[in-house]
Amino acid sequence: MHTNALHDPAHAFMPYPAVPVPHAPTGPLAGLSFAAKDLFHIAGYPTSGGQPLLLALLGVQSRTAPTVQRLLDAGARFAGKTITDELAFSMNGQNAHFGSPINGAVPERITGGSSSGSASAVSNQLCDFALGTDTGGSVRAPASHCGLYGLRPTHGRVSLHDTLDLAPSLDTCGWFARDAATFARVADVLLGPDTTPLGTEAGGVRLLLPTDLWELATPAARKALAPARAQVEQVLGKARNTRVVLDGLDDMYWHFRHIQGAEAWQVDGGFIQRFAPPLGPGVSQRFAWSAQVSDAQAASARAFRDRFRAHMAQLLGSNGVLLLPTMPDVAPLVSEPEAGLEDYRNRSIRLLCAAGLAGLPQLSLPLAQRAGAPLGISLLGPAGSDRSLIALAEQIAQHTAA
Amino acid sequence: MHTNALHDPAHAFMPYPAVPVPHAPTGPLAGLSFAAKDLFHIAGYPTSGGQPLLLALLGVQSRTAPTVQRLLDAGARFAGKTITDELAFSMNGQNAHFGSPINGAVPERITGGSSSGSASAVSNQLCDFALGTDTGGSVRAPASHCGLYGLRPTHGRVSLHDTLDLAPSLDTCGWFARDAATFARVADVLLGPDTTPLGTEAGGVRLLLPTDLWELATPAARKALAPARAQVEQVLGKARNTRVVLDGLDDMYWHFRHIQGAEAWQVDGGFIQRFAPPLGPGVSQRFAWSAQVSDAQAASARAFRDRFRAHMAQLLGSNGVLLLPTMPDVAPLVSEPEAGLEDYRNRSIRLLCAAGLAGLPQLSLPLAQRAGAPLGISLLGPAGSDRSLIALAEQIAQHTAA
Repeated sequence: MHTNALHDPAHAFMPYPAVPVPHAPTGPLAGLSFAAKDLFHIAGYPTSGGQPLLLALLGVQSRTAPTVQRLLDAGARFAGKTITDELAFSMNGQNAHFGSPINGAVPERITGGSSSGSASAVSNQLCDFALGTDTGGSVRAPASHCGLYGLRPTHGRVSLHDTLDLAPSLDTCGWFARDAATFARVADVLLGPDTTPLGTEAGGVRLLLPTDLWELATPAARKALAPARAQVEQVLGKARNTRVVLDGLDDMYWHFRHIQGAEAWQVDGGFIQRFAPPLGPGVSQRFAWSAQVSDAQAASARAFRDRFRAHMAQLLGSNGVLLLPTMPDVAPLVSEPEAGLEDYRNRSIRLLCAAGLAGLPQLSLPLAQRAGAPLGISLLGPAGSDRSLIALAEQIAQHTAA
Repeated sequence: MHTNALHDPAHAFMPYPAVPVPHAPTGPLAGLSFAAKDLFHIAGYPTSGGQPLLLALLGVQSRTAPTVQRLLDAGARFAGKTITDELAFSMNGQNAHFGSPINGAVPERITGGSSSGSASAVSNQLCDFALGTDTGGSVRAPASHCGLYGLRPTHGRVSLHDTLDLAPSLDTCGWFARDAATFARVADVLLGPDTTPLGTEAGGVRLLLPTDLWELATPAARKALAPARAQVEQVLGKARNTRVVLDGLDDMYWHFRHIQGAEAWQVDGGFIQRFAPPLGPGVSQRFAWSAQVSDAQAASARAFRDRFRAHMAQLLGSNGVLLLPTMPDVAPLVSEPEAGLEDYRNRSIRLLCAAGLAGLPQLSLPLAQRAGAPLGISLLGPAGSDRSLIALAEQIAQHTAA
């Protein structure tokens, strides 16, 4: 509940002095506290993007991102800005400059990133919910690793105005909460009604099991996810097998990386070239690689994305919901070397890039465990079905509790 | 006057949100504003030491350094924390993580460091005076470069409690001001009466010209300093030539560097080894070098220092004052490559290390110019004569104005 690092044993928050941020005295989120990834501008606070030279260049901001303002206007209390992986271009949850937030569910494992501090703050119960961003999995991965609900919304549905970009055509604004009910309260404020509402009765939703994506989970993870899968099927009906991969998994992986790399270099390349900031391990290599993505590669990737969107729209129709593992396995250990994390990241992207390329909402539910660590299972629906996915998660949670 | 980076065109201040720091409503410093190098702990603010991971690890502080508190109790208003060179281990005034403060006297030239932001804030008139620290020249160098008064006090005279160390047996707490009268007001609060007061009448001081140190200034700088030298001699009487170097300049240089390196590694080596923070250019190499300083080298350097202190005590007696160039020349250009800065730094240390090794007070006076850039001339006196040196500077300033 503190921005004061003296009271932040989870190392979730940026160590900024606490400047009061006013919120409405009443409203639908009254009584809830929230944190925001340090990509969101908040008047009176700096914005670092996890990069100290950028922090210095950008300085203290005079504007507040509208998504943050919306939460304040709904009565939520601001608890602080959270550490993000450097320039949001990592999935490790480790920041070479500002340190590594601690996973509240399993401290010896990484939170995942890049919304690492937000997942840490919520999983350590330092606030009730927290804003993150998800370009390639930066909300879904930490949600799965830390045992939280986490949403990547339909692309463009939640404003990222006055927020630092990574790759704008892929960037989305999501959030974390520990329970489905709190998650839904935030959704009411940030999402409003769905453009593609799903039937919430059994039979109203067509549950689909993408077997090609399930193969990306480790055998142990698949086994650990089986009870969660059964739990979802009890509420939504038996899932039918399907396949979603177009062309091939490697193709999808490279197309995703080419779009992300080309845009990330467009966003941050000027800063990196002009100021040569020291970048942490992995991040430095990823930007160097991004600088090399050719126009032809990016154009080919965007053409593929158009085809994939049409393919997914046809597959899901207005009531198809994919049930899939959020991540290939539980979070790697904090002690895992960079090379091992890079390998895990590359396998994860193959699983995460379906929603990213298609611009579709994906909600991770904390319904499984393996080796004492959390493991998320995801619902992925048609564009504009975000609020319905959350309602389904509430149903599943209630069914389980009953 | 702002910690808010939106109002800091000089890039002097750390971009921390402004948290109010209470000061006494009246007192000898009422009406003056001051900044503090980001090594001093101030309750409610983080302390970075110019290193982002250290910033994150140390977090927001609950204590205020007694030297800062003394200024507040004397009525001075806190204006913000200033950028320091990384871990204070540089003389360039450039921080790879938080950027480079701008020299208010000559923006195309470096401020020098490591008290770069403090010199920038004062020279850009963003506050009336500013605290820095001087281990190897970190107050004297920026004072000379930015056209300010700047003191390295007698070692141990001004408290560095609750302040980050660089090399404790060399570290001192100094400050900058634009004029001698303001400088003296601060001295009254921080120094109190001298233990070795100098006569302030002509003839009360024995002015000495260390010809071996003057040879370290460039011919152009020596020429530019001639009128300033004459100006000082008009007030304090004609200087008599002397020599201060013991053994040899190279010996002194290496002894200084061995003490500084050994202590800097003792202070920061654990942090650097455990967390492997990315360090900026130059700083990284200096710490790597420091790690290699042997116990025998450090012991030999300390033995030399004992001899040099005795030598200087005998040379100065109770009323000897050395008149010497503060720096070899005007500040290098901002565009100077790292190798050129390193060369300038190594020449500067030869000139600056006399006061450092001897633990003696040295005051730089902004009395000269070359090529449109400021150049300082220094008074170096016996231990405990700090306040007297400042009184002499006031006399010189009054004489010049008259």
